[in-house]
Amino acid sequence: MEKVKVIEIKKSVFAENDKDADALRSELKGRGVYLLNLMSSPGSGKTTTLIKTINLIKDKIRVAVMEADIDSDVDAIKIKEATGIQSIQLHTGGMCHLDAEMTRQGLDNVALEGIDLVILENVGNLVCPAEFDTGAVRNAMILSVPEGHDKPLKYPLMFSVCDLVLVNKTDVLPYFDFDMDKCREFVAMRNSKARVIPICAKTGEGVGQFADWLLAEVNNWKNK
Amino acid sequence: MEKVKVIEIKKSVFAENDKDADALRSELKGRGVYLLNLMSSPGSGKTTTLIKTINLIKDKIRVAVMEADIDSDVDAIKIKEATGIQSIQLHTGGMCHLDAEMTRQGLDNVALEGIDLVILENVGNLVCPAEFDTGAVRNAMILSVPEGHDKPLKYPLMFSVCDLVLVNKTDVLPYFDFDMDKCREFVAMRNSKARVIPICAKTGEGVGQFADWLLAEVNNWKNK
Repeated sequence: MEKVKVIEIKKSVFAENDKDADALRSELKGRGVYLLNLMSSPGSGKTTTLIKTINLIKDKIRVAVMEADIDSDVDAIKIKEATGIQSIQLHTGGMCHLDAEMTRQGLDNVALEGIDLVILENVGNLVCPAEFDTGAVRNAMILSVPEGHDKPLKYPLMFSVCDLVLVNKTDVLPYFDFDMDKCREFVAMRNSKARVIPICAKTGEGVGQFADWLLAEVNNWKNK
Repeated sequence: MEKVKVIEIKKSVFAENDKDADALRSELKGRGVYLLNLMSSPGSGKTTTLIKTINLIKDKIRVAVMEADIDSDVDAIKIKEATGIQSIQLHTGGMCHLDAEMTRQGLDNVALEGIDLVILENVGNLVCPAEFDTGAVRNAMILSVPEGHDKPLKYPLMFSVCDLVLVNKTDVLPYFDFDMDKCREFVAMRNSKARVIPICAKTGEGVGQFADWLLAEVNNWKNK
């Protein structure tokens, strides 16, 4: 398998993460780099979704990916092999989330020249990552059908901080008691402005809508 | 829906969680109460598994359940309605895990007289709960088929602290690229002594094996 860069990131020494996140956001704006923070449970399909999406947009904008995991580099390698784009692995050393300083440590290892969009695949966890502003322009998350439509009731903060909820694995809807209307209703309870897009990363269904959302986001933000 | 007790637990003030966990374990041993700590990702089927299992063992031993969640009390209510046993809800106030002191706060609200087994359903999270000894005799976890067989590679600590891994949702094996042999191999990499039991909580398949494991565990421990 192809080698990828693996970065061991250290716990932030910054007590005031919000300020640090704002500073990072301004800095990235100055360099024309849009940062998306993508969160989800373990095994919701973040990596497969990214591969499908990046292959739809990589000829229109330049994309790089930072894959955060406690351990292993399988995801960063998968993305590099399947899309050819710049992909690095961040090891969080047991940490359950990324904050702005940890995100900055990752970005320091990305060749940002000419990059329009960096996607940060956060640690698989519906709790802690929601508590830390990474400096991203937007937060997005993936909820997969097998997890159930009740997750916004149990993980309120995650759903309230996300601007976009991708509901993945729609191909297995017939085999699970997942109610898409209830899911939309529960997401809206937490964040009335959040957009919900059902997708199936495996078959590619709906992924075009996520790709369009991303392209529009990056373009609007660049022209602001 | 039936009402259940909802306990708002507070963050532990004990710096030395391991000592506190040992103290709780001894105390519970003195009272003849076996505590099992059950962990998993969000949506892996902990509650459904518990309902099926408890209905198989509740005539043999007396069981109580503590359901920990950031928010909502749907799980505690479901268990109470479906099994008739004592079931309380712990709200962690945003906390991503339970430590020994938080577990004790929960146990203070369970009528322990005559109870043989308390099952703690930890917060849905493969990272933080693994870092804190709750005072349980054993840690068990559920990995569900849709999450993928590679999870022991990405969440090493969780798999290394668990004595039992239930692989749930085997009914959907035909629809996912899940390799049970690889799963067993990856689990063994983290903990060579961990037992793996494939189950389907929905259909009940394999749940009897988990029930037998629990009955044997509680009996062996009582006779130690």
